[in-house]
Amino acid sequence: MKDFTEMMDAARSRGPCRAVVVGAEDDAILLAVEEARRGGIIQPILVGDRRGVAESARKLSIPVSSYRVVEARSLKEAAAEAVRLVAQGEGDILVKGLIQTADLLHAVLDRGSGLTEGRTLSHVGVFLVPASERFKEKFLLVTDAALVISPTLAQKAEIVQNAIDLAHRIGIPEPIVAILCALETVNTSMPATVDAALLAKMADRGQITGGKVEGPLALDNAISVEAARRKGIRSELAGRADVLVAPDIEAANILYKALVFFADAVEAGIVVGARAPIVLTSRADSARNKLYSLALGALARR
Amino acid sequence: MKDFTEMMDAARSRGPCRAVVVGAEDDAILLAVEEARRGGIIQPILVGDRRGVAESARKLSIPVSSYRVVEARSLKEAAAEAVRLVAQGEGDILVKGLIQTADLLHAVLDRGSGLTEGRTLSHVGVFLVPASERFKEKFLLVTDAALVISPTLAQKAEIVQNAIDLAHRIGIPEPIVAILCALETVNTSMPATVDAALLAKMADRGQITGGKVEGPLALDNAISVEAARRKGIRSELAGRADVLVAPDIEAANILYKALVFFADAVEAGIVVGARAPIVLTSRADSARNKLYSLALGALARR
Repeated sequence: MKDFTEMMDAARSRGPCRAVVVGAEDDAILLAVEEARRGGIIQPILVGDRRGVAESARKLSIPVSSYRVVEARSLKEAAAEAVRLVAQGEGDILVKGLIQTADLLHAVLDRGSGLTEGRTLSHVGVFLVPASERFKEKFLLVTDAALVISPTLAQKAEIVQNAIDLAHRIGIPEPIVAILCALETVNTSMPATVDAALLAKMADRGQITGGKVEGPLALDNAISVEAARRKGIRSELAGRADVLVAPDIEAANILYKALVFFADAVEAGIVVGARAPIVLTSRADSARNKLYSLALGALARR
Repeated sequence: MKDFTEMMDAARSRGPCRAVVVGAEDDAILLAVEEARRGGIIQPILVGDRRGVAESARKLSIPVSSYRVVEARSLKEAAAEAVRLVAQGEGDILVKGLIQTADLLHAVLDRGSGLTEGRTLSHVGVFLVPASERFKEKFLLVTDAALVISPTLAQKAEIVQNAIDLAHRIGIPEPIVAILCALETVNTSMPATVDAALLAKMADRGQITGGKVEGPLALDNAISVEAARRKGIRSELAGRADVLVAPDIEAANILYKALVFFADAVEAGIVVGARAPIVLTSRADSARNKLYSLALGALARR
């Protein structure tokens, strides 16, 4: 898969994905959902205030009468109801509408929700970077910019596994994962380098599967074979990463936003690790970006 | 100052800067130093193995006979000698040649060196970002990508002050500093947000001077007024940052390299906080980039 058009084609070819929208009484999300529906990517199920949804839909000339709409009296109820629908097999993915991310995740992580399997949830961003020779026609994955603040080693291992599993869905059969640090050597006063070395070894020993993991690496020697060579790094994986794993939420979030705001990258993002992917578009996302995230969610469904 | 040509002009107009090169028996550094000398930016003083220096110079047709060369039998001795020259007022800036960064910094930080004033040393990168409307003709400063691993609040305050002081030297009289986090609210389970709020208040109270400090901010709402507005952030500083302060070395280093490798940014970088700036070019830097770093160092000298 070399771009988002191919991603949307792939999503479409799996047939419409039943996307359960939490808090659907919101213009921006309705527009995105309708565009994805018309594109044959999703079949929306709207959960929220029925009157609010109908009002927004009328205003935007969206034929909401052909959608399934499920009434909820509050956003909390909407979240619980949406999670129930997905857990019961009536929906494939969750889509955040007019609800706080924390409230939606809370409903997903609820013990009785049926959507968690005890695995760490993490956010993965999928990028095309116009100024990068490597990533202008090949996806770059970045994780975790949104969920786990300061992951433990065990959580990092799950974050890596989540990203590998998503990479498979978007046409990267054996992704190379770089564990990013400020440098490429193990330094016991830099815990990120210690975790990185451990994650690489865990993958060597089969504790992480489906991809190859290398670290510690700095960003330059993760994505540039030339930079890795100059540093004298002896590794077949250095410089060839498909997936960049940042040491914590700050580093990941800053990388994520640098790609969008400084490198004009095009991006889709979802939360993985639950039984159903969760699409968390935000007000800041463009319409195009929301559409791509819905396609990514549709591809990531079970 | 809108670009590096203007930066070099400004450096030149201050008159040649006496640049003391530590471990000068290195082709790449000799080439950079000679280019800056011919450009009227520096007057080099080479410290190192006299024979090695002469050999490199002959090979590269560099008229090293017009340079002052100071013999040192080892790199450790070269570092100590270079620091002594600067401390005694015979040199203005230090330039890293064929020596490990840690070894050079060790000589600077030595209590008896005369170059430290007890202030935290920090690295500042100065960028132009071609794809950014804001920063394609206006410098963006990023700190600290190279020195302080996990700065305390007190160290962060000094890192901020160091960057503000450097901003003044490159034509930004009252820089706006954004303390970067993963989001823009104070969250007690995210120490970076707590420190960010404290640094902003410290600047309000005059504990940091010469610039305005705002945080916590995410990268998008630090550099885009539109992004800050969408998030509902009420601040005259949000979206208008000149200086980005990352929470730790990993986040800063990843941001730094994302700018260079994903956004094709042009960059100069130096270490500040000592009595003399230190130019730490690396093998990975281009010749142009080394030249700009020397100009930045020349401008930052006392």
